Amino acid sequence: MTIGILGGGQLGYMLALAGYPLDFHFRFLDPSPQAPVGRIASRVTAEYTDFEALEKFAHGLALVTYEFENVPVEAARFLQKLVPVYPSTQALETAQDRRSEKLLFQKLGIPTTKFAVIHSADELHQAVQKIGLPAVLKTCRLGYDGKGQWVLRSNQDVGRIKNEIPSAPLILEKFVKFSRELSILAVRARDGATSFYPLVENHHRGGILRLSLAPAPRLAEILQREAQDAARRVLESLDYVGVLAIELFECDGHLLANEMAPRVHNSGHWTIEGAITSQFENHLRAVSGLPLGVTRTLGFSAMLNLIGELPDANELLALPDAHLHLYGKSPRPGRKVGHVTLRADSIEQLEQRLRQLPTFFHREEFCLSERFAKSAK
Amino acid sequence: MTIGILGGGQLGYMLALAGYPLDFHFRFLDPSPQAPVGRIASRVTAEYTDFEALEKFAHGLALVTYEFENVPVEAARFLQKLVPVYPSTQALETAQDRRSEKLLFQKLGIPTTKFAVIHSADELHQAVQKIGLPAVLKTCRLGYDGKGQWVLRSNQDVGRIKNEIPSAPLILEKFVKFSRELSILAVRARDGATSFYPLVENHHRGGILRLSLAPAPRLAEILQREAQDAARRVLESLDYVGVLAIELFECDGHLLANEMAPRVHNSGHWTIEGAITSQFENHLRAVSGLPLGVTRTLGFSAMLNLIGELPDANELLALPDAHLHLYGKSPRPGRKVGHVTLRADSIEQLEQRLRQLPTFFHREEFCLSERFAKSAK
Repeated sequence: MTIGILGGGQLGYMLALAGYPLDFHFRFLDPSPQAPVGRIASRVTAEYTDFEALEKFAHGLALVTYEFENVPVEAARFLQKLVPVYPSTQALETAQDRRSEKLLFQKLGIPTTKFAVIHSADELHQAVQKIGLPAVLKTCRLGYDGKGQWVLRSNQDVGRIKNEIPSAPLILEKFVKFSRELSILAVRARDGATSFYPLVENHHRGGILRLSLAPAPRLAEILQREAQDAARRVLESLDYVGVLAIELFECDGHLLANEMAPRVHNSGHWTIEGAITSQFENHLRAVSGLPLGVTRTLGFSAMLNLIGELPDANELLALPDAHLHLYGKSPRPGRKVGHVTLRADSIEQLEQRLRQLPTFFHREEFCLSERFAKSAK
Repeated sequence: MTIGILGGGQLGYMLALAGYPLDFHFRFLDPSPQAPVGRIASRVTAEYTDFEALEKFAHGLALVTYEFENVPVEAARFLQKLVPVYPSTQALETAQDRRSEKLLFQKLGIPTTKFAVIHSADELHQAVQKIGLPAVLKTCRLGYDGKGQWVLRSNQDVGRIKNEIPSAPLILEKFVKFSRELSILAVRARDGATSFYPLVENHHRGGILRLSLAPAPRLAEILQREAQDAARRVLESLDYVGVLAIELFECDGHLLANEMAPRVHNSGHWTIEGAITSQFENHLRAVSGLPLGVTRTLGFSAMLNLIGELPDANELLALPDAHLHLYGKSPRPGRKVGHVTLRADSIEQLEQRLRQLPTFFHREEFCLSERFAKSAK
């Protein structure tokens, strides 16, 4: 069975590595000739809206999925006429727009922060009056890793930002004092069977995920139930097939849904070593019609992103149960070039291993491992 | 770093899948244009003794290793002049010949069955008198998966076999009543650091490995020590770098070394899910100069080979903690086309899962899972 994947970045790379043992073949479509998957799979270099290329790409494929949610919906719609596309184009479309995402959460009774949609800078004052300050203004589309976001703390900020913001739909969200950011990964099979990974605690800096702890330490059971309940409603309402990630805030002992990604997710990379079935294998099992794999954890994991530069592999791999994943991308500032997963049998052992990480990580992540040290207790 | 691998079968395939996350590139050399690695790595199709092809193959490689021990030693020796080759050609040469293997074990004080080397059919009677019956006659070179072996139970067998045996060096080994077959996988780094996986219990049928149980159930601690001690002596005497497998018989509470393989080994496939670091990653860590990974087990594993035909993936993957590995080879009788690893938290759970295997496995392996059921108690 050959699976077509839109996008040829590290998520696609890890999907292929998880899929080869199941005898899947892969064909990727990516506009960049540098896409790392080129090393391990066949790759078509073309724009997502090059319909002639899409038609050739689709030839002989059993199905198409994506590893990148900003694939133009037209591309998915076009392909859908030729070959099954999972998750559905509806899921893709919803997740591409913060507005439709939030409205879906609202419709399904999933708590979110207070928000207001803005069509032009003129509507900003009105929205601020409705929502209150501080608040975060975000473009509805194409924002990622902290890009296209402005924090508004005062009316001065509001005045200043009015000249900066693009003439595109925006969403103003009330800034909530959350105790932490969590995410849930859920997977739904073609027959509707659904599984969940445990909630993960995520630490960002500069808008980029740096560290995920799995399962999230000190987690009240009710939160896992709330998260699964929310994810299940989203999956069912979209007749979703594949892995879905929902990012959430923990706030006064409850969860607020922030956003979702209709694909395998950076906060699920720990599942390669830390769960019985990885998110990558489970996504492939789901879209190909195979039964889902067990999502149970194997001990405790910490996933650290490698941003812009690489550690010394010798030093890192001398640490017990440290697993290095490099994406074959040349390092440049702000670019995710790999990740490391530390696994341990107990949370105390994991904490100890985080402290033993080479200096490279202390410089970058020390505050995070300190934060973990606190949260682990 | 690009690593050259001689042989392009499933062992090479799994080495590549384990190596990509460490950012290794791979180039394979195999005489067959059908070698499965072609799907995921660059492949040179040439005979091992085509020195011109070997020279091109070696160009730009950081090192060469092999996944197939019957690579002609001349090929390894030729490559060694151009690029480091691990494990050493001496290890390759020793493991290619049952005679030199046994003589090495003998020299290192590692117990083996009684044996005699035979240069022609005329020497057979003399050897039988020395060793006694029953005995097994084996070709010294190129035997694998039960090929090139004759069991001699009576003098009639001896008379009959004399006309059948090839005019090549042979070894006559006393047939020992062993209680089971075990194997140990050991790995040695470039700096001499050495790690061991736990002893594995192996079940063969028709000379082909069918089932491995890891760790070997009901194992006396002394056997693990004996096996590690033997492996360490072999590794050190050959200044070995990489994974080495030694097959052993358990006999009256002690071990007899049977043979060795200077490469990753079928009885180590369970390490992908069942150990913290797989044999494939550890081989690559060793040959590339990285620190070795932890070899500790994660629970209990059973590895079942898929010989000649494939099970229904849907049925198999519905079983919890079942992991399917297909090699991309077209099924034909006697051919290893994949393997399945079942993992469990306890030996009782593993036993239960073996019983839950689809009918496909019962037909093929029922006697084995029954055997396991007994041995697990």
